[in-house]
Amino acid sequence: MINYPRLDCPFPSAINPHADAVNNHTLNWVKQFDLVVDEKNFRRLQKSKFGRLAARAYPNAPLEELKLVSDWNTWLFIRDDQCDESGLGKDPIRLSGVHAELLEILLGRAPEKYDSALAHALYDIRSRLLRKASSAWMSRFVYSVIEYFESSVWEAINRADHKIPDTETYILMRPYTGGLYTDIELIDITEDIYLPLHVRKNEVIQRLSLMANNVVCWSNDIISHAKESKYHDVHNLVATLQPAQPSLQHAIDLAAEMTRAEIDAFVELEKQIPAFSAEIDGDVQRYVAILRSWMRGNLDWAYESSRYIVATDDIALEV
Amino acid sequence: MINYPRLDCPFPSAINPHADAVNNHTLNWVKQFDLVVDEKNFRRLQKSKFGRLAARAYPNAPLEELKLVSDWNTWLFIRDDQCDESGLGKDPIRLSGVHAELLEILLGRAPEKYDSALAHALYDIRSRLLRKASSAWMSRFVYSVIEYFESSVWEAINRADHKIPDTETYILMRPYTGGLYTDIELIDITEDIYLPLHVRKNEVIQRLSLMANNVVCWSNDIISHAKESKYHDVHNLVATLQPAQPSLQHAIDLAAEMTRAEIDAFVELEKQIPAFSAEIDGDVQRYVAILRSWMRGNLDWAYESSRYIVATDDIALEV
Repeated sequence: MINYPRLDCPFPSAINPHADAVNNHTLNWVKQFDLVVDEKNFRRLQKSKFGRLAARAYPNAPLEELKLVSDWNTWLFIRDDQCDESGLGKDPIRLSGVHAELLEILLGRAPEKYDSALAHALYDIRSRLLRKASSAWMSRFVYSVIEYFESSVWEAINRADHKIPDTETYILMRPYTGGLYTDIELIDITEDIYLPLHVRKNEVIQRLSLMANNVVCWSNDIISHAKESKYHDVHNLVATLQPAQPSLQHAIDLAAEMTRAEIDAFVELEKQIPAFSAEIDGDVQRYVAILRSWMRGNLDWAYESSRYIVATDDIALEV
Repeated sequence: MINYPRLDCPFPSAINPHADAVNNHTLNWVKQFDLVVDEKNFRRLQKSKFGRLAARAYPNAPLEELKLVSDWNTWLFIRDDQCDESGLGKDPIRLSGVHAELLEILLGRAPEKYDSALAHALYDIRSRLLRKASSAWMSRFVYSVIEYFESSVWEAINRADHKIPDTETYILMRPYTGGLYTDIELIDITEDIYLPLHVRKNEVIQRLSLMANNVVCWSNDIISHAKESKYHDVHNLVATLQPAQPSLQHAIDLAAEMTRAEIDAFVELEKQIPAFSAEIDGDVQRYVAILRSWMRGNLDWAYESSRYIVATDDIALEV
């Protein structure tokens, strides 16, 4: 019997008052853009409650901004699922073609009838973001999405080559494959803040962002491992650790230990945030608060959502 | 008497066979776009030989690609000079307005009559880049230009506030203020290579790129210090080091020592470039070779060009 240890997080639990409204909005948005046509898949999406994930990650976001991040996150999840289901996820050439189409849309080409549902939905997100964001921010967001696309191609090459990535490279790429940096860029929009370049490039700020990203992604790897291993996906921290471990249980425990250590390191590093200026320091505090609520909110959501649950007698999820 | 030590670089000296053709091309390009209208400033530009800098930094680039990087670098230098001369460089609000116009152009708005000469020239560079580059690369380049613009605003805020940046923050920002990361992105174009995300994010590759950037910028700070200190610009490594040093000469010697140490560290770190795959490793070698030729070529050019020379009896430049 395999035991998946429960992960805890020392940050306060919070949820946006618009949570349920936004969860409903996003389900309607998915229908409006025909993103999930199959009824069974739509029910699965309903149960995943992605709107509630956004509401937990961005507890202070105003309604419109929360709808935006909820739709964007759901778009990411649907793109991921379509990759897995259509075989695109192991066909780097075809996948790059899909990304080229999506990038055109992201850069402003209005979608035509022949474009995919994902393309139409992406154009909608872009248009709504442009109402809130500067061109400079938008360029930053676009580039972050490109890095996410490229990391997805890296995964597809591995799958095509039947290659398990080594843990070091996996950890290097994981912050991009999850798309979480795009969500971190969105903090500027939901909090209506702007961190200038010398703050964004500050080593403490950069490392806190990376650590939060790691904690969210590694947690997901542990919680979803049972499900993903059923589909033999090797892009999972547990799967990359396993070859050097005496057993699967050791690999799971090590992954959990690494995640806990990353949370502890975040808490320690927070104490080293430098003072910039009165105005900037307030924005930095709000930025870091959202990093915290992403880590905590993701766990709260994962344990309430059914996204990562598999029905099997062989595993125990400590809840 | 202040002594500016000569900087040496262990990498081979090389120059592109198109050097003089491209140097002439860029001077004509500057005239075509009315970038430098004053005759005295144009003669100064001629003496700076920016085309030869590009030719030394990219010794293998084909003619069209070399023209592009030469024009781009010259555009950067002219923008910098205009900032200094017009007072824009100490007016962050006005400077941000200029950047907003330039970013629109970079993102594809065709310039109108009322737009600046810099905007028209930038649109020309964009159009020529688009013939060589993918949308994904272009988005990366645009974002790199935005970071350069933002770093320039950071400098303007310091000047407006009469603030000398501390050395740590200065070193953090210097790789952006010089615009050299945009030139490093251009290696993909001049060498016709593509480094995938897991290579670009590799720590050794990232640190080599940063070190090469530091070496070029710190060298320029030392060589241009006599000239810049005449204009009281504090955005210079020597100027940020000076307050904690017993004399200006100590600050200059320390800056030179730091630059030499950075070159040595680059040479050591090169040995740790990991093996990726046969195809990628060839591209990585070509990429790193251009980092080397940037460091060496910049020094060769600085000592042959008149850009940083000041006529005074009080300084000695060891040549």
